Amino acid sequence: MKVFNFNAGPAVLPAVVMERAQKEFCDYHGSGCGIMEHSHRNKLFDEVLAHANDNIRKILAVPENYDIVYIQGGASLQFAMIPMNLAIPGKPMEFADTGTWSAKAMKEAALFGEVKAIASSKADKYTYIPDVDSMKPSADASFFHITSNNTIYGTQYRKFPESPCPMIADMSSDIMSRRFDVSKFGLIYAGAQKNLGPSGMAVVIIRKDLVDRTPANVPTMLRYATFTENNSLYNTPPTFGIYMLSLVTDWVLEQGGLDAIEKVNDRKAAALYEGIDSSDGFYRSPVRKDSRSRMNVVFRLPTEELEAKFVKESIAAGMIGLKGHRSAGGIRASIYNAMPMEGIERLLSFMADFRKNN
Amino acid sequence: MKVFNFNAGPAVLPAVVMERAQKEFCDYHGSGCGIMEHSHRNKLFDEVLAHANDNIRKILAVPENYDIVYIQGGASLQFAMIPMNLAIPGKPMEFADTGTWSAKAMKEAALFGEVKAIASSKADKYTYIPDVDSMKPSADASFFHITSNNTIYGTQYRKFPESPCPMIADMSSDIMSRRFDVSKFGLIYAGAQKNLGPSGMAVVIIRKDLVDRTPANVPTMLRYATFTENNSLYNTPPTFGIYMLSLVTDWVLEQGGLDAIEKVNDRKAAALYEGIDSSDGFYRSPVRKDSRSRMNVVFRLPTEELEAKFVKESIAAGMIGLKGHRSAGGIRASIYNAMPMEGIERLLSFMADFRKNN
Repeated sequence: MKVFNFNAGPAVLPAVVMERAQKEFCDYHGSGCGIMEHSHRNKLFDEVLAHANDNIRKILAVPENYDIVYIQGGASLQFAMIPMNLAIPGKPMEFADTGTWSAKAMKEAALFGEVKAIASSKADKYTYIPDVDSMKPSADASFFHITSNNTIYGTQYRKFPESPCPMIADMSSDIMSRRFDVSKFGLIYAGAQKNLGPSGMAVVIIRKDLVDRTPANVPTMLRYATFTENNSLYNTPPTFGIYMLSLVTDWVLEQGGLDAIEKVNDRKAAALYEGIDSSDGFYRSPVRKDSRSRMNVVFRLPTEELEAKFVKESIAAGMIGLKGHRSAGGIRASIYNAMPMEGIERLLSFMADFRKNN
Repeated sequence: MKVFNFNAGPAVLPAVVMERAQKEFCDYHGSGCGIMEHSHRNKLFDEVLAHANDNIRKILAVPENYDIVYIQGGASLQFAMIPMNLAIPGKPMEFADTGTWSAKAMKEAALFGEVKAIASSKADKYTYIPDVDSMKPSADASFFHITSNNTIYGTQYRKFPESPCPMIADMSSDIMSRRFDVSKFGLIYAGAQKNLGPSGMAVVIIRKDLVDRTPANVPTMLRYATFTENNSLYNTPPTFGIYMLSLVTDWVLEQGGLDAIEKVNDRKAAALYEGIDSSDGFYRSPVRKDSRSRMNVVFRLPTEELEAKFVKESIAAGMIGLKGHRSAGGIRASIYNAMPMEGIERLLSFMADFRKNN
């Protein structure tokens, strides 16, 4: 039986990508060894890196005045690098607090200056995205930070705020899942392990002028300029991760690019939420309808016992990773780009059977 | 024709490891998906991580009072993390300067306190390791840092100094190539991409008491305690890299462990240096005999033109990665654990032919 992988990250990758990487794992393009064994300074890897950059630029329509770099440490290291590089003394760092990851970003920023949450849904257990039109970041803030999709609480911005200061977005869990305007942001970052490839790096898209802000005392490996000025090759990058990203982004283009991907994602999420909403309350989404994530669909069952049973039986039915985050409980179906509609159908069919039997 | 890969890193991995990883790339242990698609919080990856830890502890005989962790960013990020965590105000950080990587480590440390080079071979173009018995680190230094093997200059410590303060070693390019006493060190670190696996992480072995030194203002992802207290799982680790390391260390054990590996490494290096020394001056090692690396064998030819020709023809003869580091020139044969004796023989035979024809 084919297994469908609903893990929140590391997560399912496109089957054709996995098969291609497997095929050339030991002998990349007839070179006699795997791409992971090649120097990061040779022509073969140069081509992989250039291809990854080109694909991201093309798919997301990244303007020329932005650099694309790959930085190890995931989004969690970005929580620290952002304030280290971009906090301006005396100017607050403003955040919209939409869950665990926003809170972690704020905690790290507080080590480097004043932090202000200018919008928050914390009092309502993060069950929605605060009204973006009411978010009023200051013109004299160092930056304004949002988390575009919240993996744990299953919420997602439907549109983005306007900001007079550089807007920064953690897009770890929904980058490359829908069209958006890069030029509205000063910096976008995303841990790779959801929509882009394996764990082990973050993709950072940064407006070129912002790299000049970094204070002199920031270490080399924590300065954005180290990566932008050296095309991510100051030290040895995670070469295999970048290679996988180049294949995943090839796949996105083969699917028809972002608009086609977004349409499929919309269809997948709509079908799943419809299954939840039409269950006469057996399945229940805690998320306000206007804030529901199309990447991480969280829902509850009548009891925790039933939730545990649901998870157990779903594994037997060929679906893994459906258990909710340890801090939130319940069920979570992460349905990133690489989850096919077939997986949604399996889940819906299982949900209907489970409801009937319980 | 089989290709032999002499790259300095990323570098050759054991052929049987590559083949096994290829075989289970898309379906790890019958789970229906690849290990890189699995959550870092599930049982399958837990086992991989525990296995990697166990293997390292067994192979290097790591005492119980040391933790083993995996940190993204390579050795280059460690250059900053070490002083951020371990510099004590008012107590100098002491270094032995044996080349480019020592110098980079000192540069980052200087951002966090006073740096002293208490030994250096810089004046002699780093062609040897300074006498270790004459190295006298201070009892009241924050720490004393050495680079156990110098990839660019082809030098290696044959024995290690004694230090009254915590001794720290960058063992990126010779970890797991020979027996040494972990308990003499406070912290050992190594970028994985030479003897341990793919690029994208450093292995850090740290004496448990040292993690308490970190000042309060160091960000979460740059604190050693974040990794030691969470078994490297505070955030998503580079799961595929750790998996590859678990396979590579399995292979080390299958070879008979460190003593067997070291014997083979000695034989490989001895054969190659013998080929250089017996060439009537056609090939010439710039490194003093007592400091020659068994991992990176650097040598020169009579002219730079001949060196370029050598590199070009070696590729045609099925050997890649023999060009010296861009900052040093010449030829460099990196012969890490995974380079078989067969590769050395191919190189020696090519060297003999090339000399005869030129």
